[in-house]
Parts: sequence; C-alpha cells; structure tokens
Amino acid sequence: MDISSTEIKVRGYHLDVYQHVNNARYLEFLEEARWNHYQDYPPSYFVDKGWGVIIVNININYKFPAVLGDTLDVQTSLIKIGKSSITFQQEIEIKESNKIAVSAEVTFVIINLKTNKILPIEGDIEEVLTRTKK
Amino acid sequence: MDISSTEIKVRGYHLDVYQHVNNARYLEFLEEARWNHYQDYPPSYFVDKGWGVIIVNININYKFPAVLGDTLDVQTSLIKIGKSSITFQQEIEIKESNKIAVSAEVTFVIINLKTNKILPIEGDIEEVLTRTKK
Amino acid sequence: MDISSTEIKVRGYHLDVYQHVNNARYLEFLEEARWNHYQDYPPSYFVDKGWGVIIVNININYKFPAVLGDTLDVQTSLIKIGKSSITFQQEIEIKESNKIAVSAEVTFVIINLKTNKILPIEGDIEEVLTRTKK
Amino acid sequence: MDISSTEIKVRGYHLDVYQHVNNARYLEFLEEARWNHYQDYPPSYFVDKGWGVIIVNININYKFPAVLGDTLDVQTSLIKIGKSSITFQQEIEIKESNKIAVSAEVTFVIINLKTNKILPIEGDIEEVLTRTKK
Repeated sequence: MDISSTEIKVRGYHLDVYQHVNNARYLEFLEEARWNHYQDYPPSYFVDKGWGVIIVNININYKFPAVLGDTLDVQTSLIKIGKSSITFQQEIEIKESNKIAVSAEVTFVIINLKTNKILPIEGDIEEVLTRTKK
Repeated sequence: MDISSTEIKVRGYHLDVYQHVNNARYLEFLEEARWNHYQDYPPSYFVDKGWGVIIVNININYKFPAVLGDTLDVQTSLIKIGKSSITFQQEIEIKESNKIAVSAEVTFVIINLKTNKILPIEGDIEEVLTRTKK
Repeated sequence: MDISSTEIKVRGYHLDVYQHVNNARYLEFLEEARWNHYQDYPPSYFVDKGWGVIIVNININYKFPAVLGDTLDVQTSLIKIGKSSITFQQEIEIKESNKIAVSAEVTFVIINLKTNKILPIEGDIEEVLTRTKK
Repeated sequence: MDISSTEIKVRGYHLDVYQHVNNARYLEFLEEARWNHYQDYPPSYFVDKGWGVIIVNININYKFPAVLGDTLDVQTSLIKIGKSSITFQQEIEIKESNKIAVSAEVTFVIINLKTNKILPIEGDIEEVLTRTKK
C-alpha cells in the first residue's frame, strides 16, 4: 500500500525544556499526517457514514531528537488490516540529516458512532481505509 | 465579585525555545482557571441550558517570564457585566517571587446553541455567571 | 510593508468541546505564521545575534469559529515599528467562506539575551524585522 | 516500588473532534504525573547533576474514552530498572466510574548532557529514580 508524505517545520513552540520536540507534540505530528493521508476524503465523510475512527494503541520509539529549524517528513502507510483493527506505520525523518527521529505503529478500530460497537474491516470501510476508491 | 485562585506548576512541557512558558500555553492556564472558577456547576449545566460560552476577545500582557518549577497562582474574577457580554480579569502570579507573569482581560458572549444568537446577560445567565446561586 | 500568507488546515485535534478551533490553538497558528514570515532567516540567526524576541501583548478578536476541514490563511504583516517595540497585525481568513475567523495585534520587544535589556529597534534589528535585507 | 497519584480534571480544551480527550493530550497528562512523581526533587536537581532524562519508547493503550468533567487519577510507578534504561507503568483511571482510560509503559534513558552518552542506571541515578533518598 502507498506511503504518504507530510512535511512539518520544527518551530519554537514545538520544543520543551530539553530544546527537543516534546514527546506529546510528536503525536500531533503523526495525527496531522494521518489526516493528510486521507485528504481525498472530506472530514465529514466518515461522520456521514456513521464511523468513528478510534485509536487503541500507539507504540512509539523516540530515536533521535528533532530540534528548532528541522524539516520533518512524516511518512505514513497502512501496514496491517485485521478483522477488526488496522495498523499504520509512521516514521518521522529529519530531512536535513536523513535521521529517523521517531518511528511508531498506531492501531485503530472503527466503531459505529450510534451503537459504539466495533465494526469489521470490510466492504466500504476497507475500501476507504486502503484508499482504493477515490 | 469574588476572586478564585487556581494553582499550576510549570513543567518542562510548558516551555518553549526560550525556556519560558509559551505564549499559547498561558491561554490554556487561563481557561483552566475559568473552568475552576465555575467548578460548582457541572460542565453539562451550560449545555443543558442551551448556552454556549464563546470568547470574543482576549487582551493579554506578558509581563514577566515564568520558568520551570515556578508555582503559578491564576487569579480570576468577573469584572464587567455588559448587556450582551461579560469580561473576566485574570492575573497569573509567580508565587515564589510575587511577580505578575501575565495579566489578561477575557471577554465572552453567551449564545443560544440552537440559534447561534447572542443572549442578553440577565436572569438565569447573570445568576450563574456571578455565582450568586450555588 | 509586505504581507505573508500561511496556510493551515483545521484538523480534529485543533477543536475543543464546542467543535470550534480552541482559543489557545489560534495563538499557535499565529506563531506558526510569524516563524513562516521570517523563514528567510534561519532560527539560529536571532540567537547568534544575541537577540531574544519576546511577546509583550496580544490583543486577539475571535470573530467567527473555524471548524473541521476549514482551510485557514494566516496573513501576517508588521504594522508598527516603535522605538523599542514592534507590532504585527495578523488575520486568519477561512478560505472557503472568506470570513475572518480571528484578527490580532501582537507586540514584541527585542532583548539582549545576555543582559535581558530591551534593545532599541534600529540598525540591524530594524533591517531584519522589516525584511529589507535578505 | 511506590505508586504516586496525580489528579487531573478533564476540561473543554482537552477534547477533540470526538469529544474525547485527544490522544496526544494523554501524553501531557502522563508527563505531568511523572514530574509530580519526582516533586521532592527540584527541576534543577537533574540539570545540576548533568543528567538528561530522555524518553525512548511509549507504548500506550487507549482503553476507554475520558470525557468532559471526568476526574482522572494518573497512577505512576517505576516498574523496571535495567542496566541503561528505566520503565514506568502509568494508568489513568476515571474516578467516577473506576474505568481505566489509558495504560502505558514509558521507557527512559539517562544521558550525560555534555557528552550525550547514555549513563548506566546505578549509584546516585538509581537512588534518585527509585526515590529512596528524600
């Protein structure tokens, strides 16, 4: 499946006491990249379908600190489609040095927003998530 | 009208490139203190009434930088009730030095969540906002 | 003086309980746009000069709520150069509707990072801030 | 080893498009609780020692969504001391329902801030981290 690329510049407000990008901020960068990965679908698309996209696990490795002025490339790909969950791999590369700042696996379930029940990953849902229909 | 007090410790993730609390983070501190100011009302109270509490202006002076480990006291008081708006004064004092880090005036309107119309500040709304009914 | 333009897409993590962009988040959008306004200067430029760029006041009007999926255009211009302070005007326009979500004036002083003294806005500092030298 | 407890009220600005606490915000809650866990040591203590406390991995399970008005209890304990890394277990319990919102394991290394080398977890470092000296 295809890999999308999202560019983010590291600014002063992304840093913390160590002058590195803060650990929580990276999760916003990863979320930004996932919204971007599905940019062909308007935000209302999922809601209109009655689907909630809910994170169940993030396993994130902090490998190399990103600092002020770095240009980050957040690479996002769907690596696993289970019966009831999907997993994205996301890597954040510092473009100036080609070092990997962060690598993460992010696992979701899709719920029916009315019943809160977990939906199987099949049919429409699978098509949208794998972006085979545009 | 009475002044409420909310204590916040400055942590590493509140800081930015200058090792001071970031300008945007102070607005979260002010919002935290306003939620605390009305803690006698459950969050659903306003929604159940159909009232939306919407900020229209913040005028904030950054006077002295708060740094890691500072204990902040966010003092909040309602200083003005207009026909259709209310204004809070909020000061953030660094307890260790008694210096004022930030002073702000924050102005709100109350809207009807269904019609989006601005409501006059009177009756129930005024009672709740001035916390005369508990 | 020239106006720069910074585009930001409103994502799910920018919203709050009202499903509008949160008041504090707009300050990050404004800061993002100011970093972008001076993108021709590397972040180290100011530090190497020994200059700290410190906010003293933000006066921000929240005019119209931005919501999920909106495309924001943050327009930034330097509107006033005083003896010891500078003021930016920043407007955030929702591109889909041409409505102004936010308008703000943001005032800074420049300090000597070693002495913490406020520096006069003249010479090198004025040239950089007005971006007449590139 | 002992477990510390940090209370956080869920406010409007912690929520996102789903009206749940946002996934990135939980990492700030976990960080807040870790600062609190070591509150007997002033923030300068680690810096004065020349130690940087650097996250290498967070594995976080999102189990049940926390919503506006929930009172969260962030329970933090050091569960593993390796040769060169330490791991905290952190659980966020919703006090009103006793449901676990989040469980996480957070792994750190300690570096020498001058050389950036990873330090072995022994002697002073171990004493401080296990809080046996107060």
